[in-house]
Amino acid sequence: MSKSIGILGAGIGGLHLALYLQKQGIAATVLTDRAPEQYAATRLMNTVAHHSVTIARENELGVNHWDDPQVVYHHHDHFFNFPDGGLLFRGAFQRPSRAVDYRIYLPALMKDFEDRGGLIEYASIQDDDIPALVSRFDLLVVSTGKGALGRMFAHRPELSPYTRPQRLLCVGLYDGVDHGSPDDDDPRGVTLSVSPGHGEMIVIPTLSFGGMKTALLMENIPGGDMADLVSLSYDANPAAFRQTLLDKLEKHHPHTYNRIDTHRFGLAQPLDLLQGAVVPTVRQSWVAFDGDKLAIALGDVHSVVDPLMGQGANMASYAAFELGKAITDAVAFDARFVEDVDRARENRVLAAARWTNMMLQPPSEAMGRLIFAMSQDRELCDEFTENFNYPERQWDRLASDKRIHAWIDRSGRIAA
Amino acid sequence: MSKSIGILGAGIGGLHLALYLQKQGIAATVLTDRAPEQYAATRLMNTVAHHSVTIARENELGVNHWDDPQVVYHHHDHFFNFPDGGLLFRGAFQRPSRAVDYRIYLPALMKDFEDRGGLIEYASIQDDDIPALVSRFDLLVVSTGKGALGRMFAHRPELSPYTRPQRLLCVGLYDGVDHGSPDDDDPRGVTLSVSPGHGEMIVIPTLSFGGMKTALLMENIPGGDMADLVSLSYDANPAAFRQTLLDKLEKHHPHTYNRIDTHRFGLAQPLDLLQGAVVPTVRQSWVAFDGDKLAIALGDVHSVVDPLMGQGANMASYAAFELGKAITDAVAFDARFVEDVDRARENRVLAAARWTNMMLQPPSEAMGRLIFAMSQDRELCDEFTENFNYPERQWDRLASDKRIHAWIDRSGRIAA
Repeated sequence: MSKSIGILGAGIGGLHLALYLQKQGIAATVLTDRAPEQYAATRLMNTVAHHSVTIARENELGVNHWDDPQVVYHHHDHFFNFPDGGLLFRGAFQRPSRAVDYRIYLPALMKDFEDRGGLIEYASIQDDDIPALVSRFDLLVVSTGKGALGRMFAHRPELSPYTRPQRLLCVGLYDGVDHGSPDDDDPRGVTLSVSPGHGEMIVIPTLSFGGMKTALLMENIPGGDMADLVSLSYDANPAAFRQTLLDKLEKHHPHTYNRIDTHRFGLAQPLDLLQGAVVPTVRQSWVAFDGDKLAIALGDVHSVVDPLMGQGANMASYAAFELGKAITDAVAFDARFVEDVDRARENRVLAAARWTNMMLQPPSEAMGRLIFAMSQDRELCDEFTENFNYPERQWDRLASDKRIHAWIDRSGRIAA
Repeated sequence: MSKSIGILGAGIGGLHLALYLQKQGIAATVLTDRAPEQYAATRLMNTVAHHSVTIARENELGVNHWDDPQVVYHHHDHFFNFPDGGLLFRGAFQRPSRAVDYRIYLPALMKDFEDRGGLIEYASIQDDDIPALVSRFDLLVVSTGKGALGRMFAHRPELSPYTRPQRLLCVGLYDGVDHGSPDDDDPRGVTLSVSPGHGEMIVIPTLSFGGMKTALLMENIPGGDMADLVSLSYDANPAAFRQTLLDKLEKHHPHTYNRIDTHRFGLAQPLDLLQGAVVPTVRQSWVAFDGDKLAIALGDVHSVVDPLMGQGANMASYAAFELGKAITDAVAFDARFVEDVDRARENRVLAAARWTNMMLQPPSEAMGRLIFAMSQDRELCDEFTENFNYPERQWDRLASDKRIHAWIDRSGRIAA
C-alpha cells in the first residue's frame, strides 16, 4: 500500500517518528514553521530529561550525539523541606538519563533527517491548509497543537481531571548551581525538592549553549509563597528577579540553595527563562475526514502532562516508535489501525498522565508512608527512580492506596 | 494479599477460571443453581465448538476428556446456495476443533473441580444476595447474566450496534446427517451453509448422549423463508416439524440436505431442540461497590455474541485464563486491576464481537470478493478458517474494505 506520511510539527515526537520511518524506507515529510538556524535565538522551550529508554531509541536512530559522561546523570535526590527538618534521600537509575537543551537537540535531529535525504517543509500551517494536507498524504500525524490542529482532537474529560493548571511554572537555565557536593562519589544528579504547600523544584544538570547549566524547574502551587514567580518579570529588573528568587529558594528549597554560589548565580542568558502553566489534558487520538482519510495525534496533542515528573518528551518519543512500528506494519490507515496504535501506546502514555496528575495532589497517607519508606529503603527508592522509564510500572504500584501499601510491604519483606 | 474469589455461574468461563485458579492454589468458590446430575434432563443449552486454542487450555487444565479422533474435526466447508448454482469450498484448521454437548461437558468439569478439592455451592442467587456475596469474597466474578447479576453491568452502546436479534435461531441435535461424503479423505467437518437473504446453517459433528450427533444451528434472517422455525413447535407435532425442516433444508441448504438419510433423520431426543435469539451486547466489565470491593464480568456477561461464528464459548475460556493470570499476579483488586484484565482480553474478545456483528450483515462488495477469492485459493480459506482461533487476526483482515482487499491481493501475490 501507498504510505506517504505527513508529520505536522518538529518536536521530539515528530522527529523521532520521521527518523524511524526514514530507517524503514517509508516516505515521511515533516512540516514546521521554525528553521534549524532560528532555534539559537528562541526562548527556552522546556527543560527536558531523556531517560535511558529514550536514549536507547536515540541510539537506534543513530542520533545520540551527546553520549558524554560529563552530561549524563545517574540519580535522583529527593528533598522534603519539612518544618521540623529536611528529609533527604536518593534513588539511582540502572542506566543514566540526560538533559540537552531542545534548542540544540531539535535542530540537530532535523539536520540528521535532512542529511539522510528527509524532507522538511518550512511553512506556517493555517487552519484552511488542513483539507489540502489531508488529501496530500496517506496519513497525517499531528504532533503540534498550534491553532486549529490541536482543537481537531476532542478533549477526553474522563482522563483529564483538571480544568485549570495545578502548578504555575517558572523555568530557567542558571549558572552558579553545583550539581552535587564535592565529596559525593556521583556528583551529578537531579534533585526533586518539595516545599509542602508551596510546590516542587526539579533541578536538572542540562547541556545548553556554552556548556553545562542547571535547569531550575519550579512547579509552584497557586496561592503558595512561590506562585508569583510565574509572572515576575526578569526583563524589567534582572537584579530584583534574581534576589527574589534567591530569597525564595533559601526559604523553600534550602538543599538546592546551599549548592548555589551566590556570586555566580544568575540566568545563563536572557532568553533562558520560561514562565507559564499547563492544563493536563488527554485528547481523542484521531480524527476522520471525508474520503476515507484520517489524522492521528502524537505526543502533547494526544496527552499533555504537567512537567512535574518529566514524562512528556519521553512519552512522545515512545509513542513515536509505537506509531512508527504500526505504520510500518499497516495494511490500511483506518479505525483498526488507530486502535492498534492506541493499544500499543496507551498503557504507558496514560499511566504517565495519571501518575503525574496524582503527584500534583497533596500526598495521601499511603503516599506519605511511601516517601518515608523510600527514605529508609534504598532499593525501594531505586525502583521508584527506575520507573521514570516505565510509567506503567510506576502506576501499577501507585494506582491505589492498596497498591502503595502492597509495594512498601513487599519491599520491606525482601529487605527483611 | 487475601484472594478469596467468588465465581457466579458454572459455564465454561466460570469453570475454566475456577480450575485455573485451583491449579495456582488460589481459593475459588463456584456458585450455581444446577447440580451436575441435573444436566442430563436439561434442554439443549447451545451448540458449541471448541477450537484448538480452547482445547489447548483444556489440556493445560487437565480436563480434556474427549481427545478422540472420532470426535474432532479438521475443516470448514463453505456452501453458498446461489440461485445459479451452489459455490462450495473448504478451509482447514492447523489443529482440530471439537464439539461436545455442554450437558456432558459442564458436569464433567464440575466433577474435576470438586474431585480436586474445589468448592461448588448449589443455590439460586437472588438479587438481594449480592451485597452479602460482595462482602464475602475479595473479588466477585460474574459469569452468569441471570436476574440482576447481568444488569449490574451497564450496556456499552458504542460496541453494541444492534438493539434486536439479527437472527432467529433454531438449534437442534439430529440423527441421520452424514458428516461428509464417503469418498472424502477427511470426512468429518463443519459446514457453514449460506442461503442468501434467508440465513445460515452451521452443521457441527457433536458428541452428545448416545454418541456422535449432528448439530444443525440454523441462523435465520427475520422475514426470511426460514424464520418461522424459531417458533415452530416440535412437541405439538414432531412429524410436521420434521417435514417442514426437511422441505426448507432441501430448498435453502441443499448441500446438507443431500447428506441426510431421510429415513433416519430426526431430532436425537425431544429435549435436543433450542429456539430463541440473541441481541449481541457488550457490557461494562466491572462494577464497584461500597467498601472498596468490585465485581468483574466474564464471558457472555461481558460480551454476548450471536453464535454465527462460534466464538462465545471460546472467548469465555480465553477471558477466563486472562482473568486467572491477572488474579494470580494481582496486588490489589481495584480499577487498575480491571484495566489490566481488559487490556489482556479485550482485543480478542471485542474482535470476536465485531467480526460476528459484521458477518450478520449482507456481504459488502469487498466481502463478496473475499468469498470468491477463498473459493479459488485454498491457502486464503485455510487462513480464514484458522483465524476462528484468533478473532483479533480475523478482524485485522476484515475490519475495513481496504483490509479485505489488501488481504486478497497479498494472498494472490503469494499464490502467483
